[in-house]
Amino acid sequence: MDIAQLERGIVKGDRRALSRAITLVESTRPDHRTAAAELIEALKGANGTPREALRIGLSGTPGVGKSTFIEGFGGMLTGQGLRVAVLAVDPSSARSGGSILGDKTRMDQLSRDPGAFIRPSPSQTHLGGVGRRTREAVALCEAAGFDVVLIETVGVGQSETVVAEMSDLFVLLLAPAGGDELQGVKRGIMEIADIILINKADGDLKAAASRTCADYSGALRLLRKRPQDPKGFPKAMMVSALEDSGLDAAWAEMQALTDWRRENGHWSARRAAQARYWFQQEVRQALLAQLETGPARAALRELGDAVAEGKTTPAIAAAALLDRIGAPGAGA
Amino acid sequence: MDIAQLERGIVKGDRRALSRAITLVESTRPDHRTAAAELIEALKGANGTPREALRIGLSGTPGVGKSTFIEGFGGMLTGQGLRVAVLAVDPSSARSGGSILGDKTRMDQLSRDPGAFIRPSPSQTHLGGVGRRTREAVALCEAAGFDVVLIETVGVGQSETVVAEMSDLFVLLLAPAGGDELQGVKRGIMEIADIILINKADGDLKAAASRTCADYSGALRLLRKRPQDPKGFPKAMMVSALEDSGLDAAWAEMQALTDWRRENGHWSARRAAQARYWFQQEVRQALLAQLETGPARAALRELGDAVAEGKTTPAIAAAALLDRIGAPGAGA
Repeated sequence: MDIAQLERGIVKGDRRALSRAITLVESTRPDHRTAAAELIEALKGANGTPREALRIGLSGTPGVGKSTFIEGFGGMLTGQGLRVAVLAVDPSSARSGGSILGDKTRMDQLSRDPGAFIRPSPSQTHLGGVGRRTREAVALCEAAGFDVVLIETVGVGQSETVVAEMSDLFVLLLAPAGGDELQGVKRGIMEIADIILINKADGDLKAAASRTCADYSGALRLLRKRPQDPKGFPKAMMVSALEDSGLDAAWAEMQALTDWRRENGHWSARRAAQARYWFQQEVRQALLAQLETGPARAALRELGDAVAEGKTTPAIAAAALLDRIGAPGAGA
Repeated sequence: MDIAQLERGIVKGDRRALSRAITLVESTRPDHRTAAAELIEALKGANGTPREALRIGLSGTPGVGKSTFIEGFGGMLTGQGLRVAVLAVDPSSARSGGSILGDKTRMDQLSRDPGAFIRPSPSQTHLGGVGRRTREAVALCEAAGFDVVLIETVGVGQSETVVAEMSDLFVLLLAPAGGDELQGVKRGIMEIADIILINKADGDLKAAASRTCADYSGALRLLRKRPQDPKGFPKAMMVSALEDSGLDAAWAEMQALTDWRRENGHWSARRAAQARYWFQQEVRQALLAQLETGPARAALRELGDAVAEGKTTPAIAAAALLDRIGAPGAGA
C-alpha cells in the first residue's frame, strides 16, 4: 500500500483514492491499522491548513424517508456547487454481518451526481470499531475537499451518540404521527438533536406533520437550554423530501446555527473536545480489548452468569476475573 | 475489623453495625476493600434467602423540595410499619471534597424516627467509586432488613444513570413551572424516569403544578414505550410534600408498578441485569484504573491537549500513550 500515493490522490479529490483509503481505515488488520493512522496523520497537514467540512449527523428510523431526504437535500447542495459526501453508520450490520445493500440504489440520482460521494456501510465490522472507522472516513472526506459530510444512522442502540460525537450538528428525521401515536423516539436522542425535521409534510400527511411539529416544538421547549444553542434552538421544522419543500429552509437554519456557533467559539471548542474524546476512546478501547480475548471473554460470561444468578457478588467476581487474566487488582 | 461480628450485627438490624459497615465500603484502602467484599458476600447468604428491599431512585434539582418530600414520604412509610433507609449519591461532593452537611438536619423528623435510617453523603470520595460504594451500601441496608431504600441524587452529570442502575424504580421530582419556563430537566433523564412527581402542588403554585403535570404527561406520551412499563407508565403526578397530599397515591402507583414488574418477570430480570452490569463495571474500572496512575495520567493529559489542538490524531496519540505505559497495542 503506497500511502504517499493515496495521500496525493485524496488531496486532488480523486474518488478512487478516497474509496481505497476508506477501505483501508475499515480494515482491522494490524498493518492496515498502522497504515491508516499514518495516512490520517499525513493528511492532517496537507494543504497547509486542514480542510474543514460541515459534518452533519442524521438519524431516523426506517420508514421516515431518510434516503429520499438525503437524495433531495444532497441534490440541493450539489446544485449550489457544494460537494457532498454521505457516510453511513449501521450498527445492525455489525451484528447481522450484512451491509446495507443498495445504498447507492436507494439514492439513485445522488449516486450519479459528480458533486456527491456515497459510501455504503461496510459489512462484518467489529461493533467497537464503528466509531473510529467512520470518524476516520469523515477525516478522509474532509481532506478530499468535500464541503458537507452527511453521517447517517438508523439509530439503533448507541449509534446516535457515536454519530453526534463526530458531527458539528445533529439532525433527527421523523415521520408525521397521528394524534398521540408513539413515535419510537428514544428519549436520549432529544438530548443531542439540534434540529428535528418532520418529513412527509405533504398530501394527506400535511395536517399530521403540522401537529407532530407542534408537539415536538413543545417538548423541546420543556428541556434544558444548552450553552451551544442560540435563541430558538433546538427547533422542529417540517420538510417534504418528496415535494422538495422546506429543504432550503432547513439548510438555512443549519447554516445559521453553524455561523452562530463559529462566532461564539462553540464550533472549535466542540471539535477540540471531540478530538480529545476520540483519543481517550482509542486508549480505553485498547485497554478493554484485553477482555475480548478468549480466556477473559469466557470468564466474563461465566462469572457474569454467576453474579446475575446471585451466586456471588460483583466485587468478588471481578477480583476473580482480574486474577485469572493477570491484570492489576481492582482499584478506584 | 471483625467481619463476622459486623455481619451478625447487620442481620440483627443493629444500626451501629450498619453505620460501621457503610464506612467500611466507603473506604478506598485496599485491605478495607477486601474486607468489604467479604462482608457483602457473607451477607448475601445470611438468613437463607437474601432479603430484598424496594430500591427507589429519586432525583431532583436543588429547590424542588427533595428533603421535604423524603421527610413526608419516608414518615408515611414508617407510619405503615415499614423500615426506610435513605442513602445519597452526591456527585458534587466528590469534586468539592465537602459532604452534604446537615443531611440529618434537613430531615429532622425522619432522622429521629426509629423506623428510618439516614446516611449522609460521604466526603472526599473518588468519583469512579460513587456507584460501587452506594450499591454496596444498598446491599447492607437490605441485609439489615429495611423494606424500602431511597437512593437520592441531585442529578448532576451521570449520577441519575448510576442511581437508576441500582434502583428497582426511578422517581423524578420536579417543581411547578410557570408557562413555558424551562425546568432544567436533562433530556436523558426522561429515558429512565418511571414516575415524575410535580411537587409543591399547593397554595399559589397549585395551578402551575397542574399545567406542568399536563405538559410532562404529554411529553411522556411522545416517547417510546418500554417493555418494562405497564399501561399508563411512565406517568406524571402531583404531590405536595408540605401538605402531605398525593404521597399515598404516589406510593400506590409505585407499588402497582412494582407488582406488575414482579408478576411479569421484569423485576428479577432487571436485578440480574444490574448485577451483571456492576460486575462488568468493576472489571472495566479496574482495567481503566491503569490510566489514573502518575505517568499514564500525565501522558493522557499531555497527548489529549496535542490532539485537541490538532497537532496529532487520536489514533497516533493513543498508540503513543499505550506504548508509554507498556500496554498491549490498540486493537478492535
